Amino acid sequence: MRLDLNADVAESFGRWRLGDDDALLPLLTSANVACGFHAGDARTIRETIGRCATLGVVVGAQVSYRDLAGFGRRAMDVDAADLEADVLYQLAAVDGLARVAGVRARYVKPHGALYHRVLDDDEQAAAVVAAVAVWDAGAAVLTQPGELARQAAAAGLTVVLEAFADRGYTESGRLVPRSAPGALLTEPAAAAEQALRLAADDRFGSLCIHGDTPGAPRIAAAVRAALLGAGHELAPFRP
Amino acid sequence: MRLDLNADVAESFGRWRLGDDDALLPLLTSANVACGFHAGDARTIRETIGRCATLGVVVGAQVSYRDLAGFGRRAMDVDAADLEADVLYQLAAVDGLARVAGVRARYVKPHGALYHRVLDDDEQAAAVVAAVAVWDAGAAVLTQPGELARQAAAAGLTVVLEAFADRGYTESGRLVPRSAPGALLTEPAAAAEQALRLAADDRFGSLCIHGDTPGAPRIAAAVRAALLGAGHELAPFRP
Amino acid sequence: MRLDLNADVAESFGRWRLGDDDALLPLLTSANVACGFHAGDARTIRETIGRCATLGVVVGAQVSYRDLAGFGRRAMDVDAADLEADVLYQLAAVDGLARVAGVRARYVKPHGALYHRVLDDDEQAAAVVAAVAVWDAGAAVLTQPGELARQAAAAGLTVVLEAFADRGYTESGRLVPRSAPGALLTEPAAAAEQALRLAADDRFGSLCIHGDTPGAPRIAAAVRAALLGAGHELAPFRP
Amino acid sequence: MRLDLNADVAESFGRWRLGDDDALLPLLTSANVACGFHAGDARTIRETIGRCATLGVVVGAQVSYRDLAGFGRRAMDVDAADLEADVLYQLAAVDGLARVAGVRARYVKPHGALYHRVLDDDEQAAAVVAAVAVWDAGAAVLTQPGELARQAAAAGLTVVLEAFADRGYTESGRLVPRSAPGALLTEPAAAAEQALRLAADDRFGSLCIHGDTPGAPRIAAAVRAALLGAGHELAPFRP
Repeated sequence: MRLDLNADVAESFGRWRLGDDDALLPLLTSANVACGFHAGDARTIRETIGRCATLGVVVGAQVSYRDLAGFGRRAMDVDAADLEADVLYQLAAVDGLARVAGVRARYVKPHGALYHRVLDDDEQAAAVVAAVAVWDAGAAVLTQPGELARQAAAAGLTVVLEAFADRGYTESGRLVPRSAPGALLTEPAAAAEQALRLAADDRFGSLCIHGDTPGAPRIAAAVRAALLGAGHELAPFRP
Repeated sequence: MRLDLNADVAESFGRWRLGDDDALLPLLTSANVACGFHAGDARTIRETIGRCATLGVVVGAQVSYRDLAGFGRRAMDVDAADLEADVLYQLAAVDGLARVAGVRARYVKPHGALYHRVLDDDEQAAAVVAAVAVWDAGAAVLTQPGELARQAAAAGLTVVLEAFADRGYTESGRLVPRSAPGALLTEPAAAAEQALRLAADDRFGSLCIHGDTPGAPRIAAAVRAALLGAGHELAPFRP
Repeated sequence: MRLDLNADVAESFGRWRLGDDDALLPLLTSANVACGFHAGDARTIRETIGRCATLGVVVGAQVSYRDLAGFGRRAMDVDAADLEADVLYQLAAVDGLARVAGVRARYVKPHGALYHRVLDDDEQAAAVVAAVAVWDAGAAVLTQPGELARQAAAAGLTVVLEAFADRGYTESGRLVPRSAPGALLTEPAAAAEQALRLAADDRFGSLCIHGDTPGAPRIAAAVRAALLGAGHELAPFRP
Repeated sequence: MRLDLNADVAESFGRWRLGDDDALLPLLTSANVACGFHAGDARTIRETIGRCATLGVVVGAQVSYRDLAGFGRRAMDVDAADLEADVLYQLAAVDGLARVAGVRARYVKPHGALYHRVLDDDEQAAAVVAAVAVWDAGAAVLTQPGELARQAAAAGLTVVLEAFADRGYTESGRLVPRSAPGALLTEPAAAAEQALRLAADDRFGSLCIHGDTPGAPRIAAAVRAALLGAGHELAPFRP
């Protein structure tokens, strides 16, 4: 089976470095590039996209609430027209830097609190979908099953559902909350084993690794090796 | 003679409104749209570009240092690679929002302290030129005579030189410093008279009105009427 | 009866001016000074506090979520320890600038979305109360009736309840939502009339005027004249 | 001889961690606490000051240009009245958080580009001195020899001169530029040796270790051991 492997990248900001993108990028098939609203200064974004282009890793825009101090992890009641414009601005910036590198931003993945909010919030999901649709009707939306996926599909956008190789799941299939034990799988072997389980579920077109987990490249390498060893093909989804 | 009339627009930010863009835009042929680094939230930028598209006013990107608190008016020693990426990010964002409105950002005008710095600073001028060239070799650069103009021309970019209808000039042809008396012409009649003088100088392809001067639309209307009355054609420059 | 008259001030930011503080301040007895998180650059804050000191207007700290782009008007899920530290930082900054002017910040009023959130949200109200209590146990909290008032009183802080001279109230005594007709009373006479009604309700120790409403100084003058004409004493509350 | 050992701390910002403050703080006698303008979110500042108070490390305010994206390392042409207010705001915030922890901010050290600029720039040095003097005439200024030191002394402030244990010096006693080889001494033994040389120069009341150098705690430990072994007393300067 064909699977995409994605992770968040370009999450440094000025003097502050985050994640080991150099080690992580060659292990991915898709890279969720920060757009400057939760992380990512322009130079980091540009250089990261340049590396993606060289490596053949597909570029996606990891759009966020405007909240550097909170790293986009705090839900915000943003007006729909503001949110739509904010998402569009981020898409435009990252896609423009991608064009300059000879590629395009081919999908959108909301980040942090926005990611979780649009699983349920009709209005914010609609704002994200409207922005993606007006930006590039051929783009894909990368998300968990939920409201964003439903609305994106209804709008004719390609939807790619993802699961998390390095996050714990409850028996009922939901994510273990970050504050609970077992929320994060930091052992490469455990993540690899879970990746194999998730790969067997044909709803999922992509598996996600958290780039800012310490040891993320080792986790990604283990997941990658396990999937390839089990006969899966690792390749970007095709919008 | 054919002349372009430009002004800064989209310089509001969230709750803070600045300039009377609704009144000013119909009087312009080119609009220097703030890109979010010194002013301009995404929604304001988007809506302003939408109005430009409707009115047939040409959209340009008014790129700036990253300095909301200082409105981009404080010279900054920014590293060349950072500045190039910052300019490219801003260009990408505004051009992307323009594409969504069915148009393009057709020129770049540096804002505030960056505008003045690149008249003399080789390295920062080179960074701006590099960003414009890689973004769109067909784009124009709007500036005063100086280092930026020289380097942009050398790089094969279209250069449009501008003069200021509403700023005082000394006898030797330099701008009266903002802190000196006569720096700003706030009387529409005085600006109109000066516009006629400047229009007679064929170095200049564009005249600038400062959008954040109180009464800017009245000044623009007077300048416009005077130029048309004297037989000039008002039209965007053609990159 | 003795009444306090408060309004938000120092809500400019760099190049962007908001509110007519020069005209408004002499009409107030207490000034809610922006602290830099939703509005207020350091120089504006300093100069505004200087004017308060000269005029004998009591200085309060108008603490907010960290959100310049949203002017603090977007509810945010901020972690309690972060919020407590953010409030403390703002209090410290404004109180320090007040000390330099020979006065003190004598009360705290949450701004915008934080104002509304702490009327109901236990955890965020507790964070604000903890910050105020550790900063200055003698300080007052200015708020509507609600969770913040309850917790502040329980912590031994002085609580001053306020009502809005220039906002519409429903028959059941709640504020008309901002999006509904009648939300804002922009007629000075209507605000004055409402101020007299509210002044008769002895729960309220302070009446609020919105400083960023166009014509705020005229509204404040009318409210002030009506209250004085009806024999009320206008004076800051005494923490 | 009695010597102070200082380093920059609290330079994390939200999700981004920088420096190993937990390991570094117990080795210092004075801590230059970031104030939020180049680094330092409110919670980090508060917690760091709390640790300083527990350890008996003296708290100083590391004031900066307002430039998170550039980490305060880009010289800026800030208007003197703006700079004075910005410095005062930062001092007020950090001193207030210190009061809450039962201590005070007892000195000021400019950060990054501001540090270097005020060695020569009269006007910016005057703005910093004016802010410190009005804030607390008993406070000290920690700096290299230069314009700031001269003006601070003339204003009656305590001046403590510092040298850098972990930066290379030329034969003429100037710092090796950061871009040149030998700019940074990353070997603990080399820094310790240099510290001994500098300690013999009685102009210097304090030695500085760069907290964001990888291995800073090991460097600080080596410097500390060398100085103590040579019979120096390590103690904060006394303003």
